[in-house]
Amino acid sequence: MSARAFSTSLRVQRTEKDAFGDIEVADDKYWGAQTQRSLQNFKIGGPREVMPAPIVHAFGILKKAAATVNEGLGALDPKLAEAIKEAATEVAEGKLIDHFPLVVFQTGSGTQSNMNANEVISNRAIEILGGELGSKKPVHPNDHVNMSQSSNDTFPTVMHIAAVTEITNHLLPEMKALRDSLQAKSDEFSEIIKIGRTHLQDATPLTLGQEFSGYVQQLTNGIKRVEASLESLRFLAQGGTAVGTGLNTRIGFAEKVAEEVTKLSGLQFYTAPNKFEALAAHDAVVEASGALNTVAVSLYKIANDIRYLGSGPRCGYGELALPENEPGSSIMPGKVNPTQNEAMTMVCTQVFGNHSCITFAGASGQFELNVFKPVMISNLLSSVRLLGDACYSFRVHCVDGIVANTKRIDQLLHESLMLVTALNPKIGYDAASKTAKHAHKHGLTLKAAALELGVLTEEEFDQWVRPENMIGPK
Amino acid sequence: MSARAFSTSLRVQRTEKDAFGDIEVADDKYWGAQTQRSLQNFKIGGPREVMPAPIVHAFGILKKAAATVNEGLGALDPKLAEAIKEAATEVAEGKLIDHFPLVVFQTGSGTQSNMNANEVISNRAIEILGGELGSKKPVHPNDHVNMSQSSNDTFPTVMHIAAVTEITNHLLPEMKALRDSLQAKSDEFSEIIKIGRTHLQDATPLTLGQEFSGYVQQLTNGIKRVEASLESLRFLAQGGTAVGTGLNTRIGFAEKVAEEVTKLSGLQFYTAPNKFEALAAHDAVVEASGALNTVAVSLYKIANDIRYLGSGPRCGYGELALPENEPGSSIMPGKVNPTQNEAMTMVCTQVFGNHSCITFAGASGQFELNVFKPVMISNLLSSVRLLGDACYSFRVHCVDGIVANTKRIDQLLHESLMLVTALNPKIGYDAASKTAKHAHKHGLTLKAAALELGVLTEEEFDQWVRPENMIGPK
Amino acid sequence: MSARAFSTSLRVQRTEKDAFGDIEVADDKYWGAQTQRSLQNFKIGGPREVMPAPIVHAFGILKKAAATVNEGLGALDPKLAEAIKEAATEVAEGKLIDHFPLVVFQTGSGTQSNMNANEVISNRAIEILGGELGSKKPVHPNDHVNMSQSSNDTFPTVMHIAAVTEITNHLLPEMKALRDSLQAKSDEFSEIIKIGRTHLQDATPLTLGQEFSGYVQQLTNGIKRVEASLESLRFLAQGGTAVGTGLNTRIGFAEKVAEEVTKLSGLQFYTAPNKFEALAAHDAVVEASGALNTVAVSLYKIANDIRYLGSGPRCGYGELALPENEPGSSIMPGKVNPTQNEAMTMVCTQVFGNHSCITFAGASGQFELNVFKPVMISNLLSSVRLLGDACYSFRVHCVDGIVANTKRIDQLLHESLMLVTALNPKIGYDAASKTAKHAHKHGLTLKAAALELGVLTEEEFDQWVRPENMIGPK
Amino acid sequence: MSARAFSTSLRVQRTEKDAFGDIEVADDKYWGAQTQRSLQNFKIGGPREVMPAPIVHAFGILKKAAATVNEGLGALDPKLAEAIKEAATEVAEGKLIDHFPLVVFQTGSGTQSNMNANEVISNRAIEILGGELGSKKPVHPNDHVNMSQSSNDTFPTVMHIAAVTEITNHLLPEMKALRDSLQAKSDEFSEIIKIGRTHLQDATPLTLGQEFSGYVQQLTNGIKRVEASLESLRFLAQGGTAVGTGLNTRIGFAEKVAEEVTKLSGLQFYTAPNKFEALAAHDAVVEASGALNTVAVSLYKIANDIRYLGSGPRCGYGELALPENEPGSSIMPGKVNPTQNEAMTMVCTQVFGNHSCITFAGASGQFELNVFKPVMISNLLSSVRLLGDACYSFRVHCVDGIVANTKRIDQLLHESLMLVTALNPKIGYDAASKTAKHAHKHGLTLKAAALELGVLTEEEFDQWVRPENMIGPK
Repeated sequence: MSARAFSTSLRVQRTEKDAFGDIEVADDKYWGAQTQRSLQNFKIGGPREVMPAPIVHAFGILKKAAATVNEGLGALDPKLAEAIKEAATEVAEGKLIDHFPLVVFQTGSGTQSNMNANEVISNRAIEILGGELGSKKPVHPNDHVNMSQSSNDTFPTVMHIAAVTEITNHLLPEMKALRDSLQAKSDEFSEIIKIGRTHLQDATPLTLGQEFSGYVQQLTNGIKRVEASLESLRFLAQGGTAVGTGLNTRIGFAEKVAEEVTKLSGLQFYTAPNKFEALAAHDAVVEASGALNTVAVSLYKIANDIRYLGSGPRCGYGELALPENEPGSSIMPGKVNPTQNEAMTMVCTQVFGNHSCITFAGASGQFELNVFKPVMISNLLSSVRLLGDACYSFRVHCVDGIVANTKRIDQLLHESLMLVTALNPKIGYDAASKTAKHAHKHGLTLKAAALELGVLTEEEFDQWVRPENMIGPK
Repeated sequence: MSARAFSTSLRVQRTEKDAFGDIEVADDKYWGAQTQRSLQNFKIGGPREVMPAPIVHAFGILKKAAATVNEGLGALDPKLAEAIKEAATEVAEGKLIDHFPLVVFQTGSGTQSNMNANEVISNRAIEILGGELGSKKPVHPNDHVNMSQSSNDTFPTVMHIAAVTEITNHLLPEMKALRDSLQAKSDEFSEIIKIGRTHLQDATPLTLGQEFSGYVQQLTNGIKRVEASLESLRFLAQGGTAVGTGLNTRIGFAEKVAEEVTKLSGLQFYTAPNKFEALAAHDAVVEASGALNTVAVSLYKIANDIRYLGSGPRCGYGELALPENEPGSSIMPGKVNPTQNEAMTMVCTQVFGNHSCITFAGASGQFELNVFKPVMISNLLSSVRLLGDACYSFRVHCVDGIVANTKRIDQLLHESLMLVTALNPKIGYDAASKTAKHAHKHGLTLKAAALELGVLTEEEFDQWVRPENMIGPK
Repeated sequence: MSARAFSTSLRVQRTEKDAFGDIEVADDKYWGAQTQRSLQNFKIGGPREVMPAPIVHAFGILKKAAATVNEGLGALDPKLAEAIKEAATEVAEGKLIDHFPLVVFQTGSGTQSNMNANEVISNRAIEILGGELGSKKPVHPNDHVNMSQSSNDTFPTVMHIAAVTEITNHLLPEMKALRDSLQAKSDEFSEIIKIGRTHLQDATPLTLGQEFSGYVQQLTNGIKRVEASLESLRFLAQGGTAVGTGLNTRIGFAEKVAEEVTKLSGLQFYTAPNKFEALAAHDAVVEASGALNTVAVSLYKIANDIRYLGSGPRCGYGELALPENEPGSSIMPGKVNPTQNEAMTMVCTQVFGNHSCITFAGASGQFELNVFKPVMISNLLSSVRLLGDACYSFRVHCVDGIVANTKRIDQLLHESLMLVTALNPKIGYDAASKTAKHAHKHGLTLKAAALELGVLTEEEFDQWVRPENMIGPK
Repeated sequence: MSARAFSTSLRVQRTEKDAFGDIEVADDKYWGAQTQRSLQNFKIGGPREVMPAPIVHAFGILKKAAATVNEGLGALDPKLAEAIKEAATEVAEGKLIDHFPLVVFQTGSGTQSNMNANEVISNRAIEILGGELGSKKPVHPNDHVNMSQSSNDTFPTVMHIAAVTEITNHLLPEMKALRDSLQAKSDEFSEIIKIGRTHLQDATPLTLGQEFSGYVQQLTNGIKRVEASLESLRFLAQGGTAVGTGLNTRIGFAEKVAEEVTKLSGLQFYTAPNKFEALAAHDAVVEASGALNTVAVSLYKIANDIRYLGSGPRCGYGELALPENEPGSSIMPGKVNPTQNEAMTMVCTQVFGNHSCITFAGASGQFELNVFKPVMISNLLSSVRLLGDACYSFRVHCVDGIVANTKRIDQLLHESLMLVTALNPKIGYDAASKTAKHAHKHGLTLKAAALELGVLTEEEFDQWVRPENMIGPK
């Protein structure tokens, strides 16, 4: 049998029940029958495929919000509500994360993770109230914890709560910090004139600060893109129940839950204007992934440029010196590698892959439900986490420590033939071209070539060919 | 030799020149040496890979705008400016499209297409002024038509002009028309109660109008997404010249060109706040492609649902009758197929593929230039065109003609076991579950099963199990 | 600070050293300075991003093989070799997995994971020999464990060892078992004639066994594809050292290591014919991922078909009954969902995403090295593991338990209008078409319509319209 | 109305008929009612989306083969068969390409293109036999040209014929020519020792010939991959008719058609072992696209390396001089750009995109039919064509003209610090490392640093540090 079992401590057991009958559960776990059944039926992947923690935390917030609203509507006994809220708070704070063992590759609606949350909260609430684990009394996982809810609306709700939370609290601050760090470098490098490169070929000059200003602009735009994508994610499916109609909820439940989640999370959420769309499609996730994809495109370019500009030390571009964080090679003494750039660009390729997965999964909804929910949110949260972490690591261990190799920059600038462009208006394109080609052919400096060809005097050359006059419009 | 040559009429020739020397060009074409050289050096793909027409038209607008601004700045002789503007207008209007033979797979900066525009406009302007084609007098392709410009800023500028134009004038109107059409169907179907389906399994009911309202919401969101992506595309690179510094332009040139393009196109454009970003990265194109990708995700789901709902006629879901537009089969008499849905879903897969290409190409910029410009814009314009056309075709030949098969819908609704959900609050989840399973096992109606089990009376059943009470919150 | 630290027990510490100086390491861990430094420098992702276990195991095999060869070549002291082999065996067997904490997003050459292996094996070997952890004596991580090796050749070597092992021992057996299971169902269903569906529309009949035979063929082809992709993976980079030249190895080292790895793993490996390609490109990984991508395409189709054929129970196709493994809904009593199909199709989308990542990363090698190694192999092993596990889960929990709903199948078959195709040669396409359309319009059976139109007699109909004569050529 | 009509000359008309009634067709076209209807119903895309020519040619071959077999089986009148074969030959030879106006985005089974072929061949055969166009007499498009066939088996058959033909006759020869060209360069450069680069950082030396040998190996492997993928494409669906059962064909028809196609095309084909798989899945196309994707990965790496090695002329790596094919810049005199590399890498990104499309479409088959056939084959043929053309263009206009800049190569080699690696076994890693760092810090040569530190003598240095001893194992 090659499919691998997860190791779960199965020593002391208690019996849990669901519609399919009895099942044994480890006694030190709060989960119940449906979670246990899922563990046994979906041995797909290992710890790397476990449902992401932000989803578990979001379930804590949602279940607490629902209990509050249900209590307020008079549908839920205040005593039970209190216990549920206490247990849900523990889930929201990550204290019960070990009780959420399910993997992403389960039911496509996330039903089993919703039941996992219901079961853990109900058993923990039972414990708080002095009852017996597995008895479903006095707190029933379905009747009380899941009251007025369906997996079909809770799971898309926690998808959005988790995504907005992670993007707001992790990704955006790290993007902004990286942007600021690049801005600081752009300012620091504002007086350093260097050769430009287009098609990888020497081109007209610009300042190193201008070059970095392009990166800053990319980040600034990226932050806007990610912020804009949050708007669609702020809409919650909660209140749609099974198919979007809201059957078995009360009027106002949807709106009140959104308000309560807003209060608990400190982040703005609204009830979705159309619950049919909110259950059957996760276009908001595809949209957000598209924004992250664009950010990854930007970061790939930035990290790639910087490692090429830092290539060398003797046989590359050598314009930048990147921080040395660790030995580079076990065979080549003294080697230092742009490892942070490598980690960043690998993260970007992962984000591209995640986006492909999300796109395919997002298109595959059927009738009233999209059943690719767990794989979609798992990939989105992966992109958010990796990009945020990589922005941090790249900033702290690379960007902040970049030093301009001004000697090298200056040397290349003055060796370049493309300063000839400044001569166009003075001696004409043809003579300028002839000068550049003559210098190239004979390995001369531009000045030497120009003098050799007699197209101008030394004074004229020194007056006309001034890189500092070539870095902006007239 | 297996690489194929394009057929170009080569009978009567004239000689054109560039820095590489003389080259023969067909005398009935306005293009010059550099275009001809590209034709010979890039035999990659055939007519399917020709530079898209909207790029050519945008070059017409841009060159006209540049001539106007240059004239206004006193840099360009008014007589030449007039001729250039006249020629450029013809390009903008598509009259000279046959003089733009180059393929997408050329220089990655689009230099050769920029030169194609410069050459065609200069020769046509020369003709207008009574000069000799190929003489570059009195209108020089570089000195006059390309004045204050570089391929590195013109090509990204026409990318944005073309994209904004096609999205605004073609895609968005077609998306809105489809949305309105789906809204009309949603209204038309607002009273038809049908079975819901989650996990492809029978679920609680909703109206067919509600089901279509989800599609409407997807389109409404999609329109917003596309509109939002236009904002980044409204920024023009023009004025950055070779590397983004604006060398060889005058202060104000960039802003004036953006204003002039706005005037000529009737669409809002601005000069890009950072020209380094505008040349070296095309994140705005990646962003727009991401929006189209999300729209394709929505349309795939909608078209797929509708064809499944129309599956049959006897052995499928059969809830919708789709228009019959053509014979379905040469071997099976009377067969009608959901061909518009098939075309639409194929278009969506093409858009997904285009997006992958754009993502990869967008990440691959180097230093001061991204040299994947033509392939990026070609794929973006392909997605815009195909989605717009498919929205039109799908609307006119499918959605507008959809008829609800109410008899079938009603029959399925009443056969369904999931109406049992309405009994939960009356007889409890357990008894309800037992009833549904009993009906399923013995092939009974829900009512017959309930009566057989004695869990309620016929009157109670008829009073409690009413689909019309199951399509919203209480 | 939003980047999260991994929790590592840091209570009792020892000092480890590398070229960058001293660093504290938890005393219950075998890893050394470079691993610790990586932990601190690459806080990117969490447990989900840890280097996959098969890579660690493969390092155990490789380091053992290298020690054996080095000993045989007289380069390594037999006493040290023994200790290294013992420690490496423990790594290969997974006993030291907790000592491999690094994440995928590190140096792109996998240098830090190679050093992790060197450090763990050296410290464990030191312990075996009674030395002091961290002393690098008598077993040095670089000089002895890494002897004649570079990260640049060891990491691609373990990539291939791990991939071949997991594909051979896990994926292929599971694919074959699923194929056999589908074959058994095809045999079981060989006499059940059912309606065919093309374009989702009723078509001519086939047997359910024939339908499943298509799935069997897809799996059979898929197995061949995966097996074929193994051939490129059997070539090992070992012996190329830093840039592919094999500097600092002895002639024959490369070949002997491949032989030794073959012996230790029980799987066939060869030394790569060109080490420059083997370090700088991982096309073999891209190729293998392409094979897995094709397999995922097959499995998506199969799992999707089966869930649609099992849709219902009352309002869908209803031709198959899928096993009931868990309660389907917390709100809809009695609901059973095709959850295994959902898990399988989600896995397939993940494989598509992984393939996109691998493609991009695979194209991004530079000069003598591709520095996207960890992300490439992580995604490949993810696809291998998920597909293997999903084949197992889908087979055991779904396919093996599929039951044909023969009553429903038969009913649909006889309601269908496409049996009319059998009448083409008897009464002509036109009369046949008229009959089908008449039946469709008036809701009649085909027979009733034919008799009503008088195109044949009841005896003729019964003799001519026999589905069992429509399932093969004449 | 924003959807654009194709321009079709509609002056002189004749009336054609199908089951939907009469329709006017331009009298200078051979196509009939169903083609005309498709033209009007699928205004999606323009000339860029027309069904690729190789598909049309393959229809010519197939229809000729079918007529031959049907005649041989006594099912088709020899006189009609002759006329059909003559007309089909004209289609196969491309003479009637203007009569195939349909776009890819049509019915997903390609039915309309199959009917286009049937109609054109029938009308042309009617003309040959002196009949009246549109009369369907004496050659009927369905009864005679399509005899024993269904779109569902003809279209996948022509997909395979076209793919095998284009890959065999175009792509593989061009790949081999490029491989040979790179091999010639590898041989030419076999004595040139240069600095290696890993992580973009200076590394130990290798020969330029060795570096190019890696590219040769990639191409050699790629050729094998593409050849291997042909094997699945050699199986033809023909004989499956509507759903794979072969209804309305005779036993032996499938095999005989495959033989006849083999004869006509000069390429080996077989009848598919399972026709259900052959209609419902196009995994063979996904597999082939995967092979092309891998080839694109290789070519991207090669073209990218070469343009970086050719970067400069003064401020880049500058080790290679690439051919100058056209002026590089309208603003920078004397600039030459790696335009062929840019075209090649753009082609590669297009192939990646095409592969994503094909993957998604390939997974989306339903029951007995995959209805994404046209978009799949269109993308596959695009990849084949573009890769073949790009291999040609890149070879002729770039690789063949590459010149090694030996002076620069030699200078970089001797400036490099990584030659220090040769000192490891002489003075130890530590002293070697110290030397390299000292040289780096003070801008010295390695030799000067070593002498300054007194770690060896000048004679020792000259004897030990010899790049020619560092390019292979001992």
